[in-house]
Amino acid sequence: MANIPDSHPRKASLLSRQRIVEATKDGLLADSAMIAHGRGEAFDYLLGEKTTDSAKLAIKEVAARLIAAKNPVISVNGNTVVLAGKALIRVAAILNCPIEVNIYYRTDERMSKLNSFLENQKELLSQEDNPKGWNGDWSSAVMSVNILGKVGDGRIEGLEGPRSICSAEGIERADVILVPLEDGDRCEALINLGKQVLVVDLNPLSRTAKMATVTIVDEISRAAELLLEYTIKNNQKPTKWNNNDVLNESLEIIASNADI
Amino acid sequence: MANIPDSHPRKASLLSRQRIVEATKDGLLADSAMIAHGRGEAFDYLLGEKTTDSAKLAIKEVAARLIAAKNPVISVNGNTVVLAGKALIRVAAILNCPIEVNIYYRTDERMSKLNSFLENQKELLSQEDNPKGWNGDWSSAVMSVNILGKVGDGRIEGLEGPRSICSAEGIERADVILVPLEDGDRCEALINLGKQVLVVDLNPLSRTAKMATVTIVDEISRAAELLLEYTIKNNQKPTKWNNNDVLNESLEIIASNADI
Repeated sequence: MANIPDSHPRKASLLSRQRIVEATKDGLLADSAMIAHGRGEAFDYLLGEKTTDSAKLAIKEVAARLIAAKNPVISVNGNTVVLAGKALIRVAAILNCPIEVNIYYRTDERMSKLNSFLENQKELLSQEDNPKGWNGDWSSAVMSVNILGKVGDGRIEGLEGPRSICSAEGIERADVILVPLEDGDRCEALINLGKQVLVVDLNPLSRTAKMATVTIVDEISRAAELLLEYTIKNNQKPTKWNNNDVLNESLEIIASNADI
Repeated sequence: MANIPDSHPRKASLLSRQRIVEATKDGLLADSAMIAHGRGEAFDYLLGEKTTDSAKLAIKEVAARLIAAKNPVISVNGNTVVLAGKALIRVAAILNCPIEVNIYYRTDERMSKLNSFLENQKELLSQEDNPKGWNGDWSSAVMSVNILGKVGDGRIEGLEGPRSICSAEGIERADVILVPLEDGDRCEALINLGKQVLVVDLNPLSRTAKMATVTIVDEISRAAELLLEYTIKNNQKPTKWNNNDVLNESLEIIASNADI
């Protein structure tokens, strides 16, 4: 990777971009992953490349709902794995919940590469110290995170073809799903099944953002780090959540940044 | 390419995306071309995916300035070639000006591929009928468009390393340069050399957009088609142009689309 000085005001954004470019070369991502990343970059730019106050509230709400869930699952696509895989494994270790690799353009090769990537991350993370503020056996918590998805033995009712494939132990039986960077159709199908769908989406106007139970309008790697912090703190119960409020606040910030 | 129905409201955008994905596979584009395209998609989405009235004025102004120029040149990078190569060859044929391939991450392989791509397009275009409203020998006009760039015998003063390389017959001697999708440093260097820099940039907040002589805030393939139309009409002289006005109008549109 190119050397970006610490002083660069957009260092985090440039590092994320490099990670996506490298992962594409390594065959972890679909063709259009870089385009999706670029779209996200533009929205993040308009949001000021920082986590807004309303996004923080949404992340707290997501932490509370995952903790309160009976069968939570974290569903990840390629970009999420590359940008926030580590942080989400840590979250899953604390929640004692599985991670399901579930990708839009499903191929055996990419499913297998993403699975291996996460298993390798688990090995590395299991050797780290406990996250600050968390007590317990970290190594065994991390190693017991099930990485699902390779076996497509579940179905998402309401979708057709490869898009409907999921894991029976993961998305199919989950009551609460954290699914960053989801597309509109799948979000809608999961909502129609009565599940709580918690998403991360930088475009507050997207169908996913509008349809989800809770929408975090934030960049996934920033959001995942905060989610970890709030999951460890565990000091909030799920609230009666008005998702339109956070969407409107994000839109106001974009509008005010554009209106100079 | 996948078959997108004519009725799809975002067909043009999806076709452009496919072109960029295919061209990346064919080795015509740099790694980050898809990311740049995605950023553009997001801004275009916020602009309503149509050419605004102020963008139309900017395109007319660009046509007038290219026609009035002593030594105009159209400088193209990979994304521009893929998305608007044909239309810009037509414009160059009418203006009787060269096209220079000039890319940020210069490699011999990509320079050669982009050059061949444009030469092939020239062959195809030379067999077409005259563009509507244009009289003359179309075949010879098209075939006499010089594709420059492979020979890097010119320099852009004020830049260092590979970024400073250009064609002596093209950018170096030009008084007026149409350079869609330019980056901020190069735009600044060209302005400092006293040249008129006419750009196409979907982000009205970018350094390039703010620094250029005339900024067309529009998607390049739409803008290039309109530029062709206005170049043929040729019914306007360059005006005293206030570039801030068009930038502010674009920002107002983004703000009003975001503020729903």
